[in-house]
Amino acid sequence: MTNPIPASLEDLTRPDNDARSALEERLADILRPSGALKRLDEIAVFMAGWQGSLTPQVQRPKILIFAADHGVASAGVSAYPPSVTEAMMTAFEAGLSTINAFARISGAEVTAIDVGIGRATADIRFEPAMSEERFLEAFESGRQAVKDIDSDLLVLGEMGIGNTTSSAAISCALLGGDTSDWVGRGTGVDDDGLRRKREAVQHAVKRIAGASPEEILRELGGAEIVAISGAIIEARRRKIAVVLDGFVVAAGAAPLYACDPLALDHCIAAHQSAEIGHRQLLKFIGLEPLLDLDFRLGEASGGAAVIPLISMACAAATEVPTFTEFFGSES
Amino acid sequence: MTNPIPASLEDLTRPDNDARSALEERLADILRPSGALKRLDEIAVFMAGWQGSLTPQVQRPKILIFAADHGVASAGVSAYPPSVTEAMMTAFEAGLSTINAFARISGAEVTAIDVGIGRATADIRFEPAMSEERFLEAFESGRQAVKDIDSDLLVLGEMGIGNTTSSAAISCALLGGDTSDWVGRGTGVDDDGLRRKREAVQHAVKRIAGASPEEILRELGGAEIVAISGAIIEARRRKIAVVLDGFVVAAGAAPLYACDPLALDHCIAAHQSAEIGHRQLLKFIGLEPLLDLDFRLGEASGGAAVIPLISMACAAATEVPTFTEFFGSES
Repeated sequence: MTNPIPASLEDLTRPDNDARSALEERLADILRPSGALKRLDEIAVFMAGWQGSLTPQVQRPKILIFAADHGVASAGVSAYPPSVTEAMMTAFEAGLSTINAFARISGAEVTAIDVGIGRATADIRFEPAMSEERFLEAFESGRQAVKDIDSDLLVLGEMGIGNTTSSAAISCALLGGDTSDWVGRGTGVDDDGLRRKREAVQHAVKRIAGASPEEILRELGGAEIVAISGAIIEARRRKIAVVLDGFVVAAGAAPLYACDPLALDHCIAAHQSAEIGHRQLLKFIGLEPLLDLDFRLGEASGGAAVIPLISMACAAATEVPTFTEFFGSES
Repeated sequence: MTNPIPASLEDLTRPDNDARSALEERLADILRPSGALKRLDEIAVFMAGWQGSLTPQVQRPKILIFAADHGVASAGVSAYPPSVTEAMMTAFEAGLSTINAFARISGAEVTAIDVGIGRATADIRFEPAMSEERFLEAFESGRQAVKDIDSDLLVLGEMGIGNTTSSAAISCALLGGDTSDWVGRGTGVDDDGLRRKREAVQHAVKRIAGASPEEILRELGGAEIVAISGAIIEARRRKIAVVLDGFVVAAGAAPLYACDPLALDHCIAAHQSAEIGHRQLLKFIGLEPLLDLDFRLGEASGGAAVIPLISMACAAATEVPTFTEFFGSES
């Protein structure tokens, strides 16, 4: 198939190391004990690198939520009917959902993007989720959403009843292990639902043994998961730092990492969710989450929750004087 | 001595359980999977109880930083000279410190309160940090700072070169264990400094074996730590929810808990700091931190960092419709 991912990875941008070094030097003398903000200082340096600036900032955070329907939902793998996906789109657009409440506090704009509501992907237990054409379309939707976006921090999230099943399948196909390592309760399925979810993942993964990361995405991915891969790649081309929300977003990121371990260097993991597979997936992609609050919501909620922390990281690195500036130079 | 703490604890207020229950009922039907925000939903219910309202909010967050000098600083227990405490007061007031940068993003007002700069407490290795009179004065300073404050969320923080030594001594006297369980590097002392710090704590704790929690505070506390105890008590009288910053603030809270395990029911632990004793102290007072980012700064920085999360908790519980409201009632 025409494979968009390796082609996209060919021209991976790199962070501005001069900006990074300059900010590191400033932080070594900043008006607080050296390293007292550890993780946040690291994030400030990360932001400096991607923004190519000694004064990184978060002035225009944007949240993109990709939404799609999943054929595998018919396997009874969710506590909610597929119609909830569309209903939640209405809620996002009306500013009524949890993510909208979070975004108001984070000062971020929310855009929900339908990449497959009413056109469910095929049931991954029995056939490829997407044709090659549909796969390319979904990937391109993600890219297009980021292509002209005016943002200095991009948060990616998702909505799609059935998509933790798809994410568990992608993870299991990519990294192996037992289905029980990857399948959690998602929106809150009961024991029977959990059993059905595991069986669905087992069927799906067995069907495509030996597939490449790109093929895994096409075979098992929801359209929103593939769109997330595309959005990550396009953000990288534009050097926009990306905040990954939870398990489903990580499932869109992990295949990129499998293709090229440098592919996610512009990404921050927002949080460790309650979903069992998420911890392992984050370990695989090498990202340490900022929060660990047992969220299991999706909708980019974990991502929105960390925007203020990233803003604070930048502000604490740029708005605070150095010891030299504050006390005056001895020279 | 005249003991202000038991007297203060006599009229501990209680949260409004009707408001709590009403919000819990709302959350059970809210437009997201049940329990999907877990910790934040718990915090919203906590805020509802203390604000006595079904619509808790964070509109007027205030940050109080108590600052004081410590006689034990002369034991070489800090990486910085005592003069830094006063210099940082200037920085707080000029809006130049890390906490000011955090507060701008959190939408909080910062007030720094001098409760003992230029009048260091006595060296706790050899004598009581405070006379009874000074102890009462410090406690009362904390109360007065909160008495008329207009705030729906109060963050307590501190500044005082030498105060992690004082905090380690309070913790060790209160809970026992080896000094190495409680003494960390604070602002970043080297190995020699760490050894001096342990020795200082050992001397101090040995000197007052068997003291009551109140006596421990007076004997080992910095004036800012005692002021924090007073501020916690006064916030409780006024039913204002309190965010405890790091190790030093927890050391001001722990003796209250030792006097009455209900004393901190209106408190949230902001974060788990990098300081070794903090984890154990939080376990003792029964509070689970919201963040774990290896901060070791003080200045209320961890407290300010969680204000947006607490705002989000309230917004997600009050601004999002229930399923019934959103889809309409079936009845």
